Amino acid sequence: MNEMKLISAIREWAAPPWRDASLVAGIGDDCAVLKARPDEDLLVTTDFSIEDRHFRRKTHTAVDIGWRALGRGLSDIAAMGGTARHALVSLALPEWANERFVRDLYRGMRLLADRHHVSIVGGDVTRAEKLTIDIVVLGGVRHGAALRRNGARACDAICVSGTLGHAAAARYRERFEPCLALGRKLAGRVSACMDLSDGLALDLRRMCAESGVAAELDVDLPVAPGATLEQALWGGEDYELLCTLPPRRRLPAGLSRIGRIVDGPAGQISLAGAPLPALGWDPFATGGRSRARRVPPR
Amino acid sequence: MNEMKLISAIREWAAPPWRDASLVAGIGDDCAVLKARPDEDLLVTTDFSIEDRHFRRKTHTAVDIGWRALGRGLSDIAAMGGTARHALVSLALPEWANERFVRDLYRGMRLLADRHHVSIVGGDVTRAEKLTIDIVVLGGVRHGAALRRNGARACDAICVSGTLGHAAAARYRERFEPCLALGRKLAGRVSACMDLSDGLALDLRRMCAESGVAAELDVDLPVAPGATLEQALWGGEDYELLCTLPPRRRLPAGLSRIGRIVDGPAGQISLAGAPLPALGWDPFATGGRSRARRVPPR
Repeated sequence: MNEMKLISAIREWAAPPWRDASLVAGIGDDCAVLKARPDEDLLVTTDFSIEDRHFRRKTHTAVDIGWRALGRGLSDIAAMGGTARHALVSLALPEWANERFVRDLYRGMRLLADRHHVSIVGGDVTRAEKLTIDIVVLGGVRHGAALRRNGARACDAICVSGTLGHAAAARYRERFEPCLALGRKLAGRVSACMDLSDGLALDLRRMCAESGVAAELDVDLPVAPGATLEQALWGGEDYELLCTLPPRRRLPAGLSRIGRIVDGPAGQISLAGAPLPALGWDPFATGGRSRARRVPPR
Repeated sequence: MNEMKLISAIREWAAPPWRDASLVAGIGDDCAVLKARPDEDLLVTTDFSIEDRHFRRKTHTAVDIGWRALGRGLSDIAAMGGTARHALVSLALPEWANERFVRDLYRGMRLLADRHHVSIVGGDVTRAEKLTIDIVVLGGVRHGAALRRNGARACDAICVSGTLGHAAAARYRERFEPCLALGRKLAGRVSACMDLSDGLALDLRRMCAESGVAAELDVDLPVAPGATLEQALWGGEDYELLCTLPPRRRLPAGLSRIGRIVDGPAGQISLAGAPLPALGWDPFATGGRSRARRVPPR
């Protein structure tokens, strides 16, 4: 197989079962060409998925790896309250990755992409020692309606979707579902939003740091069945939505209230009155080799 | 350094010296948020730059690596006749890459980005064993005016910008300048266009395969001073523009005529009447470890 043959095969594997009217030119040219939507702001996100960092060949199938790689990007679009529309896939393949593996990787991506009506329209292919995927997802959101991390204010309620710790309890093998429909419902109703990729403790800290506020978490978090409180706080990869609701707003369906925003040092989090260590998944902490490394506070 | 500190430093290193009016939200949120241009089609491209595949630490400084990584993406926008506007940078850093190295990497990207008024608005950071950069470049082109690879027709003249083989002659150490201004001038005037990243022989073959035509090259190619004909044909990384001009059109300034499109087996190239082997930079050929590997025809 050479690059031309591989790209031609990918063009087939990546093709969606519908006609994408917004696509002018897809895989095969130097750029993807897309029709802009004049009534929307454009959302763009990129996410790496790297062998032995974000997944392991021993525990994840090619279909799983594809699903998760795309899911991480879709979850970022959900966090901004947007609609995901197009994806580009940069793929660096080791020698062991044969045609069947790459086809299954795209099968995993397409399984998830089809559920959310997302077209794969481009990317790059090259070689690397470790399988490396960088996903680009493009989406749209009504002008000025993108949800941000920096809008949390004192007295806002802190809320999360679903339950926490389910990914860690499933040893990070579940095929998670990005909260795109919920994110769109939250647009215009919450003051800040982000997705929970690295664990509640670390992600809430990031939101509070961006917003210049502190937070107090309640003890009775919505811990997933089979998960521990530790996994709920620090496990990461739940891809639920974390958001803050201004006072006296009705709690939107699908969310649980888990604490409140308070005035205080930016990024300081407490749980039931005691400071909460900012542990979680941080590859830059002190080596960051293991999946669920806990990070010391800076 | 932890991830929050790194991202905060990157936000500073990546900041352009002008105010980007089209940027709603940049580095620090789950997505970059951009104002769409209703009069344009959107261009998107991604390009990997991987240590020991696309560059070597021994021969390239951090500034060089940053420049080249972004330049590859800008060149794709040039190839479509567009204007580059925003970039996202996904960065997987080995343990050896210290703060100074990453700062210089962004300095290299900014050096080139500032020349073309491009803002770096997002990306991802993680760890890897080899330095891995995936660049996303977003740009715009007038509705329906994007230059494609698939428009070459029999009797069109084949043209290239600048000279060929200069990158190989400089042992791939030059800081190349993407042909953005020329690409915009060619929009609406040429029948097909692409950038020369993998060598004339291989890239022309790809253009002809997409267009369903064959090509005849002349002997007197514009070989760069100090370069050999081999380097001009197969060296790659010149990042000049390759395009085809319909008959009786005046040759645009900055281009040299190097041959003609003919009817024949799709993708077949001849030089002075003899078949030209489709060698060039193809990482999927037979291992693809060396920089200037020649690729056997499929």
